[in-house]
Amino acid sequence: MSGFNGLAIPGPTNMPFEIRQAMDVALQDHRAPDFPKFTLPIFRDLKRIFQTETGHVLVFSGSGTSCWEAALANTLSPGDHVLTSIYGQFSFLWAQMCERFGLEVEAIDVEWGEGVALDFYEQRLSADKAHAIKAVLVCHNETATGVTSDVAAVRKILDDLAHPALLMVDGVSSIGAIEFRMQKWGVDLAVAGSQKGFMMPTGLGIIGVSQKALEASKSAKLPRSFFEFSKMIEMNADGYFPYTPAVTLLHGLRASIDMMLAEGLDNIHARHHRLATGVRRAVKAWDLTLCAKDPALYSDTVSAVVVPDGMDANDVIKQAYSRYNLSLGGGLSKVAGKLFRIGHLGYLNELMVLSALGGAEMAMLDSGIKIEPGAGLAAAVDYYRASGERSA
Amino acid sequence: MSGFNGLAIPGPTNMPFEIRQAMDVALQDHRAPDFPKFTLPIFRDLKRIFQTETGHVLVFSGSGTSCWEAALANTLSPGDHVLTSIYGQFSFLWAQMCERFGLEVEAIDVEWGEGVALDFYEQRLSADKAHAIKAVLVCHNETATGVTSDVAAVRKILDDLAHPALLMVDGVSSIGAIEFRMQKWGVDLAVAGSQKGFMMPTGLGIIGVSQKALEASKSAKLPRSFFEFSKMIEMNADGYFPYTPAVTLLHGLRASIDMMLAEGLDNIHARHHRLATGVRRAVKAWDLTLCAKDPALYSDTVSAVVVPDGMDANDVIKQAYSRYNLSLGGGLSKVAGKLFRIGHLGYLNELMVLSALGGAEMAMLDSGIKIEPGAGLAAAVDYYRASGERSA
Amino acid sequence: MSGFNGLAIPGPTNMPFEIRQAMDVALQDHRAPDFPKFTLPIFRDLKRIFQTETGHVLVFSGSGTSCWEAALANTLSPGDHVLTSIYGQFSFLWAQMCERFGLEVEAIDVEWGEGVALDFYEQRLSADKAHAIKAVLVCHNETATGVTSDVAAVRKILDDLAHPALLMVDGVSSIGAIEFRMQKWGVDLAVAGSQKGFMMPTGLGIIGVSQKALEASKSAKLPRSFFEFSKMIEMNADGYFPYTPAVTLLHGLRASIDMMLAEGLDNIHARHHRLATGVRRAVKAWDLTLCAKDPALYSDTVSAVVVPDGMDANDVIKQAYSRYNLSLGGGLSKVAGKLFRIGHLGYLNELMVLSALGGAEMAMLDSGIKIEPGAGLAAAVDYYRASGERSA
Amino acid sequence: MSGFNGLAIPGPTNMPFEIRQAMDVALQDHRAPDFPKFTLPIFRDLKRIFQTETGHVLVFSGSGTSCWEAALANTLSPGDHVLTSIYGQFSFLWAQMCERFGLEVEAIDVEWGEGVALDFYEQRLSADKAHAIKAVLVCHNETATGVTSDVAAVRKILDDLAHPALLMVDGVSSIGAIEFRMQKWGVDLAVAGSQKGFMMPTGLGIIGVSQKALEASKSAKLPRSFFEFSKMIEMNADGYFPYTPAVTLLHGLRASIDMMLAEGLDNIHARHHRLATGVRRAVKAWDLTLCAKDPALYSDTVSAVVVPDGMDANDVIKQAYSRYNLSLGGGLSKVAGKLFRIGHLGYLNELMVLSALGGAEMAMLDSGIKIEPGAGLAAAVDYYRASGERSA
Repeated sequence: MSGFNGLAIPGPTNMPFEIRQAMDVALQDHRAPDFPKFTLPIFRDLKRIFQTETGHVLVFSGSGTSCWEAALANTLSPGDHVLTSIYGQFSFLWAQMCERFGLEVEAIDVEWGEGVALDFYEQRLSADKAHAIKAVLVCHNETATGVTSDVAAVRKILDDLAHPALLMVDGVSSIGAIEFRMQKWGVDLAVAGSQKGFMMPTGLGIIGVSQKALEASKSAKLPRSFFEFSKMIEMNADGYFPYTPAVTLLHGLRASIDMMLAEGLDNIHARHHRLATGVRRAVKAWDLTLCAKDPALYSDTVSAVVVPDGMDANDVIKQAYSRYNLSLGGGLSKVAGKLFRIGHLGYLNELMVLSALGGAEMAMLDSGIKIEPGAGLAAAVDYYRASGERSA
Repeated sequence: MSGFNGLAIPGPTNMPFEIRQAMDVALQDHRAPDFPKFTLPIFRDLKRIFQTETGHVLVFSGSGTSCWEAALANTLSPGDHVLTSIYGQFSFLWAQMCERFGLEVEAIDVEWGEGVALDFYEQRLSADKAHAIKAVLVCHNETATGVTSDVAAVRKILDDLAHPALLMVDGVSSIGAIEFRMQKWGVDLAVAGSQKGFMMPTGLGIIGVSQKALEASKSAKLPRSFFEFSKMIEMNADGYFPYTPAVTLLHGLRASIDMMLAEGLDNIHARHHRLATGVRRAVKAWDLTLCAKDPALYSDTVSAVVVPDGMDANDVIKQAYSRYNLSLGGGLSKVAGKLFRIGHLGYLNELMVLSALGGAEMAMLDSGIKIEPGAGLAAAVDYYRASGERSA
Repeated sequence: MSGFNGLAIPGPTNMPFEIRQAMDVALQDHRAPDFPKFTLPIFRDLKRIFQTETGHVLVFSGSGTSCWEAALANTLSPGDHVLTSIYGQFSFLWAQMCERFGLEVEAIDVEWGEGVALDFYEQRLSADKAHAIKAVLVCHNETATGVTSDVAAVRKILDDLAHPALLMVDGVSSIGAIEFRMQKWGVDLAVAGSQKGFMMPTGLGIIGVSQKALEASKSAKLPRSFFEFSKMIEMNADGYFPYTPAVTLLHGLRASIDMMLAEGLDNIHARHHRLATGVRRAVKAWDLTLCAKDPALYSDTVSAVVVPDGMDANDVIKQAYSRYNLSLGGGLSKVAGKLFRIGHLGYLNELMVLSALGGAEMAMLDSGIKIEPGAGLAAAVDYYRASGERSA
Repeated sequence: MSGFNGLAIPGPTNMPFEIRQAMDVALQDHRAPDFPKFTLPIFRDLKRIFQTETGHVLVFSGSGTSCWEAALANTLSPGDHVLTSIYGQFSFLWAQMCERFGLEVEAIDVEWGEGVALDFYEQRLSADKAHAIKAVLVCHNETATGVTSDVAAVRKILDDLAHPALLMVDGVSSIGAIEFRMQKWGVDLAVAGSQKGFMMPTGLGIIGVSQKALEASKSAKLPRSFFEFSKMIEMNADGYFPYTPAVTLLHGLRASIDMMLAEGLDNIHARHHRLATGVRRAVKAWDLTLCAKDPALYSDTVSAVVVPDGMDANDVIKQAYSRYNLSLGGGLSKVAGKLFRIGHLGYLNELMVLSALGGAEMAMLDSGIKIEPGAGLAAAVDYYRASGERSA
C-alpha cells in the first residue's frame, strides 16, 4: 500500500525525524566513564518536563503499565487501601493491578465520559479519619474516553482534609502534551510513557517520584526489584543505572526533551488545544458527539467520537485502515464498537489533523454513517485558518 | 514547527521508509568482487521500469539535468540540428542547454499549458529531406505546467516519415509514475531522476539509451567524459562503474525498484490517475482552472493551479509554507506568481493528497482568494470514497 | 576522538547494520490487524533460538535483570527455598534478588573462577526429601569471570533424584552465542537479554518458559503484573501484547533472529569458539592467566584476564578507553582492579578481535604491565590463520 | 559473514555515525525559503577546509572524476596545452581525460613511485615563452602508489617564471586528511570527493576554484553545462543550486565539516601522520617495501605495499576479503598484482589500523608470503603506544 500510514491513534504517535536520527547510534558501554555526561542532563531536564524541582524522574525500560506497577510496589504494603475512580479502560486496569498486588481498592464506577469523582473522593477521604487510605489514584487523561480530569482539585481535597494519602496520577497521555504540574499539584507519583507526548517509540516508562513517595517507600512492604526506586536513584545520581538501560531509547529521549524544551511547554499546550479544537469542530459539523460528557472534560490529546446507534465504530476503523491506511483508535471494553478515537497528540500539525479527519470522514461514509462529505474538514479548515494571523 | 513537512511539490517526493532504511548502510568497496551481485540486478530491473528490452539504462551521480547533457553530448556533434517545442520551463532549459553545446535548435514556442507541437514537428520533419535534424526532443511531462504530451504520436510522425532523428524524451516527472514505454514508443534517450517517480533522494540521474542512440554515439563529436556511455556500459556489463558511483543512493535505488515492481507498473499508473483526479475535482470545486489547456493534457503527477487575476500565487505558497508547513511548487519564469503547483507523484495516498489540498485551501484563503472553505476537500473526499469498494 | 569505538565488553555487543536498519522504522499501531503477521513469526522463531518446542519464549521491555524477576515472581511463593551457587557478580545479584522477594536462599559461595557447585547441588537436593527446594538456579555463563557452567549436569542431578524443583538458568551471555538447549537440558526458565548474543541494543529481556514452569505459576503466590506470564502468553497467541510493547526493538529482534538462523546456530557456536580460542592464545602469549580456573570452564563469549599482582586492571581499562577508544569490561565487586574482561560475542570476526587484543596490549603496556609488544597479536594471528583453509 | 567489513581501501573510507545520522532525513524542497540557511554555511565552511578565502568551493553531484572534468571544461579551450606528470593511475586518467576534450597534453611519464616531475615542469614552463601552456596539472596524492607530491614547489616554479598557467590539483585523497593550502599554494582548481577525507558516502565532487580560474572561464571555449561554474556560483550566492542538488548528501557534508572543524585541520593532519607512520613501521617489520621511492614522498593517507617477486598481491587481497572480511586496495594498471594498498585516511584510529594490519598479515601468510606472524602488528603497537602519553 503506497504512502505513509496515518497514525491517528492516541499513542504511539508520530515520531519526528530528529528522534529517529538520535536513536540511529552504535551501541555503547553504559558503564563507560563518560556515560554520565549523557545521562545526567536527561535526568535534570526530565524534571523540567514533569515540572518538579524537589522530586526525581526515573526512566525504566517498559511502558506506562510498568510505571503503574513501580508506583504501587515501591510505596504500598499488602492490604493498604487505595482510592480510585473508574471511568475508562485505563483507570479500570490500574485498579485491577492494585488488586493483583493485594491492595484494598475502594473504587467508584463513574459513567464513561465523566472524569474523576471528586465528591466521592471528598466523602471517602473525610470519612477516613484513621488514614487507612494510603493512596489516591487519578487517571489524568483517560485515553479510552478522551476525558481530562482535574488533578489539582484532588490535591485540594487532600490538602483541605490534611489527608496524608499519596496522590498517584496516570499522566501517560497527558504529560508532555497538556498542562501537568507535578510539584504545584502535589503529585507524588506521576506516570508517563515514551510513545505519547514524548513522541518516541514505545519501550520506556517514565515516572516522577516526590520526596514524600520516597519516604513512603522506606516502609512499603510490597516486593519489587527491577522497579525499586532507591537503587535507581542512587545509581542515577552518578549517571548510571542499576542494570542495563535501553540506551538507544535514551538517545531518543534526549532528542525528545530537546524538542520539547525548544518549543516550550506552554506553546506545546497551546498547540494541542488548537489542534484539538479543530477536531471538535469537525465532530460537531458531522453532527456527532464526543464520549466526554462536558466541554470542561474534553481532552486536548484524544477525542472519542461516538457513532450513531446501529452503526459499528469498528467498521469505521477497519475501513480507515484497509482503504486509507489510517490508524484510528478503537473503543475499548464497554464502549467497543460504539466509538472510535482520534489521537491528536505529539508531533502534529494542522495538515496532519486534516488528513486524519478526511480519512475518518471517508471511513464513516464507507460504513454507512450519514455525514455530509467534507463537512468536518471544512469546519476544521475554517477554524485553523481563522485562528491565527497570515504571514506578513 | 511541530509536525511533518507536507511535501506537495513535484519532486523531491515523499520517501518511503523502506528506501531510507536501504540507504542506511556502511560504506563499501565498489570494486569488491561481490559488488556485481548487487549492481547487475539493478541494471536489469531498471530496464523493466523503463520498459525496454533492447536498450540500456545507465545511472549517473547527478540529476535529470545531467542526463539531458548525457543525451546530447553522447549522440550529437557541434552544429547538429535538434527539433523541440517549448511549452514550459523544463522544455525551455533543455533547449537552452542545446545551444550551450553548439547545436542548432529549431524550436517552436507553444503557449504554456499546451503540449508538444505535433503539427510543427510533422511539418519540419517532412521538410527535412536531408535529415539535418538529428534529434527530436520532447518533454513528456512538463513539470512547470502540469502537461503530459503524447510521445507515441511523435514517434509515429518519425516513423511515417522514416526520419532517422533520435527521439529524446525528458521523462523526469513521468517515468515510474505514469505510463512510459521506452521501447514501444521508440524512445532513444529517456531521461529520469531519482527524486520523482523513484521516490528517492535527489542525487542520481538515470537514462535509458537505445541501440540506435549507442550507434549514433560512435560518430558523435561533442566532447564528454564523465557522461560517456560506452565506458559506462562496458564497465556496467561486469557490475562495475568507470569511476566512483554513489553507492548509498544505489542501495536506495534497489529498494525503490523493489517497491515499484511489487506494486506493479500498471497499478502505479492507476493510483496516480486516481489521486490526480481527486486533485482536479478539488480544483474544479474551488472554481479555479489548471494551467493545462485540455483534459487530454492533464498530468497525473503535477497540477498547476492558476490563481484568479490580481491574486498572487507566490503568497499562497508562502502562507502554505510558513503557516502550515506545506511545500507547494511555485510558478516558474513566465507563470511566476500566476500559479502554484501541487505535486502528486511517488509514494502517495489519498490522505496525503487531502492534507495537501487542505493546506492549499487554507493558504488560498489566507491570501484572499475567495474559495468556499472545505469545498475542494469535500470534492476529493467524495471522489476517493466513491471510486472504490468498501472492505468486506 | 576519531574512529569507531572498539566495543570489547561482554555486552552490549557490536550491532550489525542489518539490525540498525531494521529498527529505523516509523511508529505503528501495535493493535493493528496486521500486527500479528509481524509478531507471530518472531515468537515462533525465538523457540528455535532457545531450542525448545514445548515451551514459550516471551519478550519483555527490560533487560536480563527483569527476566530474573519474571522467572521468580511467576513461579515461586514467599518462603520458597531456592538453591544456587555464587561464583561471580551475576550469580550473586540473582541470589540477592531472591532475598528481596522473600525467598529462602540456599547458596554456596564458590571461588570466583569456578563454576556451578554440582556436588553441593547433589548433596542438598538428595537431602531435600520433602522437596522444599522449589527452584535451582544456574548462571550458565558467568559474565563476571568468564566461566561457563554445565547446565546439563544440573539437570542430570535433578533427574537422577527425581527432584521436581524448577531449573532456572541465566543465559544472558550464552543464549544465541554458545550452545544452549532449553528443552534437551530441561531448563524451565531461561533468561536472555537483547544486547548480547542477539546483537541488539539494550532494552529487551527475553525468557524461555517451560510447560512445567507455567504449571507452577498457577499456584505461585509472589505478586506480579507487568511480568505476568499467563496474560502475556494469552495475548501473544493472537500476536498481541497485554500492554504497549517496544515495537522498534521488536523490529531489531526480527532482524537479529533472521541473521542467526541464516548463519545457523552450530556455525555461530563454532565461530565463537574459534574467536575465543584466539583470545586465549593471546592471553597465554602475554604470560597472563584467565580468571576461569580450568579449561573446561573457559567461556567462549568473555575472557576475564587477571593482571599481575600489584598492577591495576582498572588503569588498563582507563588507558584503553581514553587513549585507544576501546571499551574493555572491568572487574566487578571482589575482583575489581584485579582483572579486565574482553567480550568476544555477537557480531564479531577475527579482525575485530585483533583490534581489541591490540588495544589491550597497548593499554597494558601503558599501565606498566610487562608483556612483549605484539606477542598476543602474533599468537592470535597465528591461530586464526592456521585454523582454516585459504580461499581457492 | 559475521562482523563488520574492515574498510582499508583508500576511499570510500569509514563513515562516522554522525554522518550517517545526518543523512537520515526526510526529503525537502531545495527551493524552500529556508534552504539557504542550511546551504550558505556549508559553502562558507568548505572554504576553511580548502584553506582559501578568495576562492569559491563548489559541490557537484558526482565524484572526483566529475570535478576533473569541471576543472578542464570550465577553464580551457580546445587545443590548449596542458602540462602534466604521469606517475600513477589517477594522474594517467586525468591526462587521458584531457585528450578526450581535445587538449594538447604535454606529459612526462615518471616511474610509478616517484612524484611530480619538478625538473620537467621547470624546463617546459621556462621554454614556454609564448605561454601556450594554459594549465599545469598535479596529482597531489597519487592514490595508486601512495605518493604525495610537492604542490607548493610547482607553484614556486610558476611564480619564479611568472608563468600564467592555471595550477590544477587533484586533491581527492589529500584534502581534508593531509595538509592542503589552496590559497597559499596558489592552486587554481582543487579537486576533491566526498568519500575520502570527508568521510562521507560516494556521490559528491567538490572543487575549489580561484578567482583566476573564474576569470579564465569567461573565455574558455570547451562546452559545459551541468558543470558550469558561473551559474553555480551565481545560484550558490543565494543558497540555491541551478538544478536539483543531492540534498541528503549535503546533510552528510554538513556533519562532515562540523567534525573536521571540531577536530581541527592541524590535528587531523597530525593524526594521519601518526597512523601512517605505524603502518610504515609494520611494512618495515615485514621486511617489505613501499611503492613510494623516498620517505619524502610517503603518503599519509595510503600505503602501497610491494609484495616480493613471484608473489601475487591480488591473492593477498582475495584472501583478505574472503577469509577476513577486509577490503584492501589493489594494484592498478601497471602495478596490478605487484602491490596491495592499505588506505589509512578519514575516520580512523590506532585500533582500526591494527585490525587492517592484522588482516594484511594473515592474508599475506595465506598467500605464501614469508613474513613473521605478528611482526608488523608488534611494530605498530610499539610505535602507537610509545608516541603519546598515558592518561593521568
